[in-house]
Amino acid sequence: MIVEVLAIGTELLLGQIVNTNAATIGARLAEAGLDHYHQGVVGDNLERIAAAVRFAVSRADALIVTGGIGPTQDDLTREALCAAAGVEMAFSEEQAAALRRRWAERGRVMPESNLRQAQYPAGATLLPNARGTAPGLRMRIGDAWVFAVPGVPAEMVPMLDDGILPFLRAEAGADAVVVSRLIRTWGDSESRIAEILADLYETSLNPTVAFLASAGEIKVRLTAKAATDEEARGLIAPVEEEVRRRLGSQVFGADDDTVERVLLGELERRGWTLATAESATAGSVAARVTVVPGASRVFRGSIVAYQEDVKTGVLGVPEATIAAHGVVSEATACAMAERAAVVLEADVAVAVTGSAGPDPQERPVGTMVVAVHTPEGTRARSLHFPGDRERVRVYATTAALQLVRLAVTGAWWGSGGDTHWDRQGDEGS
Amino acid sequence: MIVEVLAIGTELLLGQIVNTNAATIGARLAEAGLDHYHQGVVGDNLERIAAAVRFAVSRADALIVTGGIGPTQDDLTREALCAAAGVEMAFSEEQAAALRRRWAERGRVMPESNLRQAQYPAGATLLPNARGTAPGLRMRIGDAWVFAVPGVPAEMVPMLDDGILPFLRAEAGADAVVVSRLIRTWGDSESRIAEILADLYETSLNPTVAFLASAGEIKVRLTAKAATDEEARGLIAPVEEEVRRRLGSQVFGADDDTVERVLLGELERRGWTLATAESATAGSVAARVTVVPGASRVFRGSIVAYQEDVKTGVLGVPEATIAAHGVVSEATACAMAERAAVVLEADVAVAVTGSAGPDPQERPVGTMVVAVHTPEGTRARSLHFPGDRERVRVYATTAALQLVRLAVTGAWWGSGGDTHWDRQGDEGS
Repeated sequence: MIVEVLAIGTELLLGQIVNTNAATIGARLAEAGLDHYHQGVVGDNLERIAAAVRFAVSRADALIVTGGIGPTQDDLTREALCAAAGVEMAFSEEQAAALRRRWAERGRVMPESNLRQAQYPAGATLLPNARGTAPGLRMRIGDAWVFAVPGVPAEMVPMLDDGILPFLRAEAGADAVVVSRLIRTWGDSESRIAEILADLYETSLNPTVAFLASAGEIKVRLTAKAATDEEARGLIAPVEEEVRRRLGSQVFGADDDTVERVLLGELERRGWTLATAESATAGSVAARVTVVPGASRVFRGSIVAYQEDVKTGVLGVPEATIAAHGVVSEATACAMAERAAVVLEADVAVAVTGSAGPDPQERPVGTMVVAVHTPEGTRARSLHFPGDRERVRVYATTAALQLVRLAVTGAWWGSGGDTHWDRQGDEGS
Repeated sequence: MIVEVLAIGTELLLGQIVNTNAATIGARLAEAGLDHYHQGVVGDNLERIAAAVRFAVSRADALIVTGGIGPTQDDLTREALCAAAGVEMAFSEEQAAALRRRWAERGRVMPESNLRQAQYPAGATLLPNARGTAPGLRMRIGDAWVFAVPGVPAEMVPMLDDGILPFLRAEAGADAVVVSRLIRTWGDSESRIAEILADLYETSLNPTVAFLASAGEIKVRLTAKAATDEEARGLIAPVEEEVRRRLGSQVFGADDDTVERVLLGELERRGWTLATAESATAGSVAARVTVVPGASRVFRGSIVAYQEDVKTGVLGVPEATIAAHGVVSEATACAMAERAAVVLEADVAVAVTGSAGPDPQERPVGTMVVAVHTPEGTRARSLHFPGDRERVRVYATTAALQLVRLAVTGAWWGSGGDTHWDRQGDEGS
């Protein structure tokens, strides 16, 4: 069962809203085990909508059309479905009465234009919309099922979940589900990970293996198809184990895990508190950690020491250290982390100093030094990130969180690792 | 000149990421006066990409393909363009050398798989990518221009703005220019601004007036069409003047101005330095200020006092103040701002304390108190933001920056204003 999605609306083409419906529907089709190869967007134009519908039903078994079924004159989906199917427009007295009742219940008189929502292509079935006034539609065009649903996500999603997906699964005699698992990593570049997993990528067909890159993090996606959810997970498990074995400690989580949440969990388990001392990242690491609800159980605070005299004064980094090694140095970063642990009374502290650009500060732009202090010691790492100031800061923030995680879990100290920090994140997708 | 957009990526079909690129490109095509009727998405499948390209070029004058040009095996756009155009794959020694140089500059060995990014369909022109390693492509397929750009927005947008759109406008022989001017405001809600400008919205046809809301900031967009850029700007000028007159000090800038850049400019003009003391926003205000290159001329640093004893200890807020008024109070916020100015030796300091949720802290979730200290005094404001933890923190960060701007320029103290802080941001978009 191949399903397409077609979104209607000039506001989408103009970029005034983003087509989140397509992503929502895509994710649900995948979960339901339905094949999904194409998504389209077309504006509020009768002929173009009708042509797009005709084209979609020529190559798919089902089409879900979102938007264009409201009450105004630029809502043209109903008319376009009539044109594509070659049928007349019909009128539902029952629906008209329901609309009038709904308005009357709120003590208001319904504008007559709302009666457009009681029109439907002859032969179509009206689908109830529990959260809005525009009913959905289900009809046959050519050899395909065509559904029309509202563009408002809050109305669309329940109609999809409660009506359309069960219908399509039944039609498909669907005995397959698709399950995806994201393995989240930080440390190697996308191309290096692709190399390490090249044989799996090439030979593993169920699950398939894919790579995604975002903000320096590389995700490995395993997608399996099977008769049941349990069976699909069973197919994924051994491949996931192999991927984790090969990538080692650079794997920090799966699916919705974020490094900040994983890190806070590791700290809380050990009863350790966290502080940060930030120069180039200027509070970004503290802000990221506290995105997580409950961060206050672990996070003490931060000293953003943007100026050198704040580093020596408030934080108490020895002037001699800076004089001997410079601000952007492992020695200064280590002193910052150690002093942050003292001043903010934390068990663990991370410090970031660097040259984010656009003008170099002591070291070339993109040089960032991260130091981590734990009850077991203090250690620093110099990293080099490509890109502009904003990107360098984002990557350094992620790097700092990852290095604290590795320090806390002992992986940085212990494994002697082959984790290539400085290769990380240097390519597009 | 009809332009289509085709996004490549199974992750889009699976709903793992949302196709924001399509919205970005759509908005820019509209501004450039280019026609845009269709957008599509297709997965990482050679035949389907090639078919989608062939179909698009059969009905459009130009096609912009996003994604699928990275270094890994599932990046298939180059191969699909070869198939659609019926040409062989070529290899750019120059590009290969540039890739090797880029890796060598960082003291690293390039994985061979990266050489895929030196391949290109024979006859295509490589487009420079200032922010990544994958070059873009421009080629002719049938009667249409086809462009391939990376899926990473930070890489894609400059290539679009600097290369593709000027090229297409020139090809179109575009004789009308469309000029947009964004007037950026903070203080009133979108519906209140729409009320204040209702007559302009209804009667002004060139420029047109539109409203955009994002992260609590409301933008008024004026769009004019004329024979020349100068003429279009001449049409906009008197309407902009009227909008600014009506909205007063809540207008902080235009077009690409950000509140942080405007604020740093105001501080630098006065020779004043800035510090922050943050609880609920946990470094976000410091991080936002330092996004601006050259922030070090003004910004001193920050104390993120997440725990109460950091507020009293490191920052030195009197315990009696917190005991009498609570942590989330105007008195505590004022003390935090004043102490930050002392400890961090700054002329101006802003403090944020609040209850970001999900669990209330002293005051209801969404309550945020901002205090600003300047050489002219200290003053605080309580604000209430709707939404979840993340949204409350983002809104509070913007509010803090705006309130410092108003305090520094004297607008908060002086005008007695009608700026409805607490009405701000209380509606969806």
